[in-house]
Amino acid sequence: MLVHMTFDSEAVARAYWETAEARDWDAFGELLAADVLYECPQTRERVRGRKAYVRFNREFPGDWHLTIDHIVAGDQSAVTWTSFVLDGGVDTGLAFLDFDTAGKIVKITDFWPEPYEPPTNRAHLVERY
Amino acid sequence: MLVHMTFDSEAVARAYWETAEARDWDAFGELLAADVLYECPQTRERVRGRKAYVRFNREFPGDWHLTIDHIVAGDQSAVTWTSFVLDGGVDTGLAFLDFDTAGKIVKITDFWPEPYEPPTNRAHLVERY
Repeated sequence: MLVHMTFDSEAVARAYWETAEARDWDAFGELLAADVLYECPQTRERVRGRKAYVRFNREFPGDWHLTIDHIVAGDQSAVTWTSFVLDGGVDTGLAFLDFDTAGKIVKITDFWPEPYEPPTNRAHLVERY
Repeated sequence: MLVHMTFDSEAVARAYWETAEARDWDAFGELLAADVLYECPQTRERVRGRKAYVRFNREFPGDWHLTIDHIVAGDQSAVTWTSFVLDGGVDTGLAFLDFDTAGKIVKITDFWPEPYEPPTNRAHLVERY
């Protein structure tokens, strides 16, 4: 069966973050499938369903702000790389967004990679910046 | 100017990891632009150029093995999600691969998100798994 694309995955990914930054929760919610699933594998946090997921974002603690650094848009998924500013710190957020055939976001998998000191046994193979 | 795609970004991303897992360093090197740049923002490690980057992988310490979990393929970039097995542990690797117009990998940005305990101030908004 041929699947005809009826949505622009990059545009949906961009709207996801722009509506979140704007606290436009109605528009944010319209991008989500009713049974959207959010997972953060690092913390094993999970949120199920549009209502709970809008609330998770709306009530997320702190005066956070974000900018979009990169979007890699595939057919049924996109990956976003964002800078998330909170309490004077900047964290890097990486999110895999999966879409249903109507272009609604059906799954978000969120990663927050933190700085760390690399092992010394590969120090001869790299430079530092 | 119209840019006509002459390569399959998903296939190149898959070949990148498959040749690494196979230790086929000639084939791995052929996927890379001569001036390829590797960066790991978490450790601020950097490797410049094909020769040094093949060596970084060839001499990377330990008997590591990897499997590809997901690939999100865009026009000029792809993102890979891999499971990297070393010394009995499994790490999640996320890599942004950027391609030049010939489909050679010109930049790799590598992330290794680690498990962490989430703040309690959002515990009422999530479940754990």
